[in-house]
Amino acid sequence: MDVVEALTAALPPGAVVTDPDRLASYRNDQAPGVSAGTPLAVVFAQSTADVAAALQVAYAHRTPVVPRGSGSGLSGGANAIDGGIVLTLERMKRILEIDAADGVAVVQPGVVNDVLRAAAREHGLFYAPDPSSRDWCSIGGNVATNAGGLCCVKYGVTRDSVLALEVVLADGRVLRVGHRSIKGVAGYDLVGLFVGSEGTLGVVTEVTVKLRPLPAPAITVVAVAPDLDVASRAIAGVLDAGTPSLLELMDRTTVRAVEAWKPMGLDTAAAALLLAQTDLPGAAGEEQARAFEAACVAAGAIDTYRSETAEEADALLTARRLALPALEQLGDILIDDVAVPRGQVGALVARITEIAERNQVTVATLGHAGDGNLHPTFVMPRGDEPAMARARRAFDEVLEAGLALGGTVTGEHGVGAIKGRLLHAELHPVARELHRTIKNALDPTGILNPGKALPFESGA
Amino acid sequence: MDVVEALTAALPPGAVVTDPDRLASYRNDQAPGVSAGTPLAVVFAQSTADVAAALQVAYAHRTPVVPRGSGSGLSGGANAIDGGIVLTLERMKRILEIDAADGVAVVQPGVVNDVLRAAAREHGLFYAPDPSSRDWCSIGGNVATNAGGLCCVKYGVTRDSVLALEVVLADGRVLRVGHRSIKGVAGYDLVGLFVGSEGTLGVVTEVTVKLRPLPAPAITVVAVAPDLDVASRAIAGVLDAGTPSLLELMDRTTVRAVEAWKPMGLDTAAAALLLAQTDLPGAAGEEQARAFEAACVAAGAIDTYRSETAEEADALLTARRLALPALEQLGDILIDDVAVPRGQVGALVARITEIAERNQVTVATLGHAGDGNLHPTFVMPRGDEPAMARARRAFDEVLEAGLALGGTVTGEHGVGAIKGRLLHAELHPVARELHRTIKNALDPTGILNPGKALPFESGA
Repeated sequence: MDVVEALTAALPPGAVVTDPDRLASYRNDQAPGVSAGTPLAVVFAQSTADVAAALQVAYAHRTPVVPRGSGSGLSGGANAIDGGIVLTLERMKRILEIDAADGVAVVQPGVVNDVLRAAAREHGLFYAPDPSSRDWCSIGGNVATNAGGLCCVKYGVTRDSVLALEVVLADGRVLRVGHRSIKGVAGYDLVGLFVGSEGTLGVVTEVTVKLRPLPAPAITVVAVAPDLDVASRAIAGVLDAGTPSLLELMDRTTVRAVEAWKPMGLDTAAAALLLAQTDLPGAAGEEQARAFEAACVAAGAIDTYRSETAEEADALLTARRLALPALEQLGDILIDDVAVPRGQVGALVARITEIAERNQVTVATLGHAGDGNLHPTFVMPRGDEPAMARARRAFDEVLEAGLALGGTVTGEHGVGAIKGRLLHAELHPVARELHRTIKNALDPTGILNPGKALPFESGA
Repeated sequence: MDVVEALTAALPPGAVVTDPDRLASYRNDQAPGVSAGTPLAVVFAQSTADVAAALQVAYAHRTPVVPRGSGSGLSGGANAIDGGIVLTLERMKRILEIDAADGVAVVQPGVVNDVLRAAAREHGLFYAPDPSSRDWCSIGGNVATNAGGLCCVKYGVTRDSVLALEVVLADGRVLRVGHRSIKGVAGYDLVGLFVGSEGTLGVVTEVTVKLRPLPAPAITVVAVAPDLDVASRAIAGVLDAGTPSLLELMDRTTVRAVEAWKPMGLDTAAAALLLAQTDLPGAAGEEQARAFEAACVAAGAIDTYRSETAEEADALLTARRLALPALEQLGDILIDDVAVPRGQVGALVARITEIAERNQVTVATLGHAGDGNLHPTFVMPRGDEPAMARARRAFDEVLEAGLALGGTVTGEHGVGAIKGRLLHAELHPVARELHRTIKNALDPTGILNPGKALPFESGA
């Protein structure tokens, strides 16, 4: 019996799909231009038992398994492997429990981020992590990549909201780790080990998350910077004035792309726009919004604007949310993800500009400035291979610049299939060894998402 | 050459101490009544190189090593082992760097928590984690136990402030993990794995922590509860009204102990006092303090009081900070540490009362109510062995009650030498296996703090 026959025998009818047309749509995540293999089969799990059965078969056959959520990843972490299987959790999408008294939700991994957010809101509660893809990315994928988003500057990343997990290990054993209490130090932090491990240590089948009190309606402050130095100083000034619930940067290229696609009267002459939000209640919010405005003006902003209503506060964020699709209108894009220490954002922005110019490629610099996490996005004429090659060089150079500034090669998108070599460059030699030690201890035959998320001396 | 000779040869003059009188003072941490061995030697490390040299020798000789900070632990985690060595980091107490622009500090493990706090304050910054022992506990110990404190309800535990670590592994290899940026998902979360591992996976020799903007001066709200049900409802009400920067419970036994020792006019007739703080700035703080008062009144509090000045806000916390020394005036004490989901605090308080009554032992219930993390403290006539035996039974019963309520056997004090059996009870069977897998992978000969912090089927 080959692995596909064994999977078909072990799983419910219809769970194992080998139709080439359907396989094709499970080869890639959203990372542009990353190579992907063709899987032998896609397994649609409906339960933890299905996941355990699939892994038992794969383990016995030494067949690679690529776990997959909704496929919104930007690093190829869910890209298929030739001769492997794709194990998709998209059908495990039930919210099992929301307990307002305990302030927790228990969900299956296929639940879409925005669906959980909306369900929590009905209980007056708030699920904080908000990747830009929140209307279609899944919680399981968020956990696998330790996804970030716009809220992180105040509310942290996915890890900061995950209390407990159910995980199926490489050999099919089902594991429960973590606790439902907010605090807890009993045993090693195995939850933290699985969060962000990109499917290389186990497959997450249930997630218990922390919910917070729903914050007050936000006030958005927009500041117009005449140059990128002013923008960088304004970022530091806002952070000194308090903790914003969001602090985003959009440079001129980004603003112009949005304005060209969906005109909304943005200042296309400005070097950059800064968007800051406060979600403090009542007078405190007003006060903090004024303090953010004042900090931007003190840094040299030529104009600031503050939202008057919750609807307007939201509308002012539309430009930021449209940035990537707007840039996609201009040609092929390559989104980078780099994070530096808070004080190095200005230096990083300057390095990005220099790298793009030297490589003769257009860059749009945008991202989560308050966390020092930027997404410089290279834009090339469609199908222009030489330009894409230059962009790939610039992509790596930006990450090397981030490392030189004391930062990291991925702030939130993950290593996936594209940053193994750069992860190798980032990690201390003994840390590389320890990654291998832990991978070998948990996945001794290496079937879980091989080639992803670990340091590799060469290649991706 | 025996292990002590080898250590003496490998380390600077004076670093290896074998004088029995000095050894005696390094046998125990602050956990009362926990057995401790007598070490062969105490090694006073002054540098990472000293720690690496000591571990190389211990590894070669298969000699157990107990890492130790300032010895303020409450679970026997730093208690010595017969035939082992104690490796103390207390002389590695330099603050290596505070960078206000990046919002980070880099410290050696022996730095005392309050020393770092004060140094950060000079830069207008805030190091959040504040164990009650903060004036003498060390950052290294805080990391080893993932220490909590009073701030956690708003600012999280030690893990939430640690960005990067230098760690010496069992065989003496020096490892660097983590990043200086706020965000970062490059590789596995090895920082999280070491934080809270109680010296069983490596010895921390340098810590990079996140600093936050210094919050506004706090306002303290005190509420007087006529019974424990009201106190529990008030806790839930305050949490629904916002995120306090502190939310502490003191029951009547605690209040009376403080009042008997240091009279300050507390209401000794009340069943419990609740202390809530807000550190929101200006009008927002006033507004939030009023909301907390209103929530307590709505829950049935018979009196509330709000501080008028920062000094008074601090003074109102004095009773809470004096609770343990005040209880120690009454006899021998045994401090428990249990955490339950937010909505289960009332049920836990009721169970604690019932357990203490049934076991005929006095209990003072106090702790970090906002996190569901309580420290029921049993008080026995000095030297009364039967009472101590009853208290030990009650101690375990409280933890079992916590587990039954969906909680954990340690919220912040750690497993140490006293909760291995209870950790075994808490952990899922596969999680137990995974603890062993990871311990064996990182410390294959088991020299690092053996007998601590792991699940054991019987015994402590």
